Amino acid sequence: MSHQPDTQFLSRAGGISYDNFSFNVSYKDPKSRARLGRMETPHGGFDTPNFIFCGTKASIKGLHPHQVKEAGADFILANTYHLMIQPGADLVEKMGGLHKFMGWEGPILTDSGGFQIYCMGEGVNADEIKHRNNKTNRKQSLTKITEEGASFKSYKDGSNLFLSPESAMEIQRKLGPDFVVQLDECTAMHVSERYTEDSMHMSHRWGDRSLKAFDEKHNGAQAVYGVVQGGIYKNLREQSAAYTASRPFFGTALGGTFGGNFDQFFEIVSWCMPNLAQERPVHLLGIGTFKDIFECVRLGIDTFDCVLPTRVARHGWALMKGAPNERLNLLNAKYKEDQDPLWPELGNPSSSLYSKGYLHHLFKAKEQLAGQIVAQHNVAVMTHLMKEIRKAIKNDTLDALQKEWIPE
Amino acid sequence: MSHQPDTQFLSRAGGISYDNFSFNVSYKDPKSRARLGRMETPHGGFDTPNFIFCGTKASIKGLHPHQVKEAGADFILANTYHLMIQPGADLVEKMGGLHKFMGWEGPILTDSGGFQIYCMGEGVNADEIKHRNNKTNRKQSLTKITEEGASFKSYKDGSNLFLSPESAMEIQRKLGPDFVVQLDECTAMHVSERYTEDSMHMSHRWGDRSLKAFDEKHNGAQAVYGVVQGGIYKNLREQSAAYTASRPFFGTALGGTFGGNFDQFFEIVSWCMPNLAQERPVHLLGIGTFKDIFECVRLGIDTFDCVLPTRVARHGWALMKGAPNERLNLLNAKYKEDQDPLWPELGNPSSSLYSKGYLHHLFKAKEQLAGQIVAQHNVAVMTHLMKEIRKAIKNDTLDALQKEWIPE
Repeated sequence: MSHQPDTQFLSRAGGISYDNFSFNVSYKDPKSRARLGRMETPHGGFDTPNFIFCGTKASIKGLHPHQVKEAGADFILANTYHLMIQPGADLVEKMGGLHKFMGWEGPILTDSGGFQIYCMGEGVNADEIKHRNNKTNRKQSLTKITEEGASFKSYKDGSNLFLSPESAMEIQRKLGPDFVVQLDECTAMHVSERYTEDSMHMSHRWGDRSLKAFDEKHNGAQAVYGVVQGGIYKNLREQSAAYTASRPFFGTALGGTFGGNFDQFFEIVSWCMPNLAQERPVHLLGIGTFKDIFECVRLGIDTFDCVLPTRVARHGWALMKGAPNERLNLLNAKYKEDQDPLWPELGNPSSSLYSKGYLHHLFKAKEQLAGQIVAQHNVAVMTHLMKEIRKAIKNDTLDALQKEWIPE
Repeated sequence: MSHQPDTQFLSRAGGISYDNFSFNVSYKDPKSRARLGRMETPHGGFDTPNFIFCGTKASIKGLHPHQVKEAGADFILANTYHLMIQPGADLVEKMGGLHKFMGWEGPILTDSGGFQIYCMGEGVNADEIKHRNNKTNRKQSLTKITEEGASFKSYKDGSNLFLSPESAMEIQRKLGPDFVVQLDECTAMHVSERYTEDSMHMSHRWGDRSLKAFDEKHNGAQAVYGVVQGGIYKNLREQSAAYTASRPFFGTALGGTFGGNFDQFFEIVSWCMPNLAQERPVHLLGIGTFKDIFECVRLGIDTFDCVLPTRVARHGWALMKGAPNERLNLLNAKYKEDQDPLWPELGNPSSSLYSKGYLHHLFKAKEQLAGQIVAQHNVAVMTHLMKEIRKAIKNDTLDALQKEWIPE
């Protein structure tokens, strides 16, 4: 295969048509890049900024889809990497696509699979990419990345698998979400600028191949996101943002490493933003603490996703406005006799029906209901946070709201 | 303490008053001892025969109380043995009692703790007691039973604990269920007739001590069950049944071993029944396959309990009318592409919203939602079974119904 993809279709009048989708910005904060928007999809609409909940293997861990909805969620994500291995894209297609398969009627996004191939293959902790840790302990790679695509081992049985930009599109077409993402290489912080630059250019060529493959079978049911790479290098981030803006992607996702600390993370995001296509929705891949969200909303991010709300639930951590580290640790003995529910005003059963003392007991007794209750609560906290953020953008009270949620 | 309990209170006019409780038999099958009844409690009423779902540690495994209710359940059980250790009866009392603590508004029964002390202490498999296996491999006992009560080790930290008839009543009073059970010694099949007889007489003395302790603090909120012991010996079962009938228990529970096979099990239950107080509800402790239930309803049993519906759910077994072994194994590859839900007519989300193919995927992917879905389905199957049994008793179609549920 030629390394220069055929992009003739890109010059066709109108590019790719996304008639069944729309994104409209209704309000812009005069003091920051924060904005309010409305996304419409074949599976309903939602307001932005918003949060996408992770249903990695076509299941939000511990929650029925109707419990996710009851907690106020609009939008979920499933992982191409996991689903292509188990149960396989052909099976999901045969079963009517992800919405029908898992019983979620709202919008769904699948990622490209690239991030998991990279993380699992390289043995690099995801923390490195998410500005949590700048130490690395690189193990031998199980992934081989060439111009053609990525060769990797199945997490399930070690068998050899291959993902190309074209096959990633085909798999996502079969999975049937509303939003699909181009395949990219997600570079780590420790690699050289030269490697990062070469990789970024390859990701751009993969972007064009993804668009071509998408367009060939496009029937109006899906919209595609391009991904900004470029690591920790300003000129590369700007180039990569400009690349996505020059191509007919429906939306833009920011990927790759965001450096080794919080300040670097914000700086890297801020380099990208002015160079993106401003009328398109911007998704920040895999980021989702309260602090991340407040800061990145100001930088212009429209949607976030993170496994945190449902993952920490299983460890007894209930997300909470104003709490130290943004959460209560329900295993703490101080909750043993606490008769108060988590947060009744959130209006879902999990936040209102059970005392913290009961939840403390369930976690101590290792009863799985504990994690289920806190998972729904955590989803509700995130949807409430996003609702309050949208209101605060409109009312110019984002700073005050941030102090309520993160007092320290 | 004297080995002869003070039973003076038993001769008081009227015995123990159960004004807030009632059990009325509305119909008797002319061809068997099967009967229809109605139980009223301070937490609502329900029809019998019925099934009690096990919430061992104050949680029905994997289900919110409202999901248990949604599946049609009327009545649940919690285990004194587990709760006295974690979180402790004092804590449950302080939190307002079991109903408030766990969020279940319907009737609750707690057992006495005796069965678990026996099983865990003796290292004897519960199967031996439940007519599943007549081989025994008796390990050294960790439990010491004397006239005073039972000394045993905590399952949690190995600390020494003691349960007497009086403390079992006090703990159950603090836990606050509607129904409590006297402490008994649950004898195994392999012990001698002499041991069984001596133990039975002690259980009867424990019954009188339990009644006295119950009566001393009785405020109308609870009703107490006596327990029939006597092992596999007809004369002992008859004596023990007659003992319970002679004392002011509200209901009768059948406990102890039911022999080594199915026929012996039915025979032992049938020895007890004519000697019980006929106007009282009869509970069969820890028994609950479809076959057990059909046969024992004919013998006159009013209520059943068993961990089976929620336990097998976690292993991928969905209870099903007419299925081989009463269940579908959802891990079986034949369900991979099965687009049909489990049983939509049951009217709960778990039995109707998800295809068997999706459930197969969730079990293969080890997603905990799988067990949650099947747990609710299994509860719904059991409540549906009991509803159909009640209808069939009235219509004299129990044999035909049994053939629908258990064709083999």
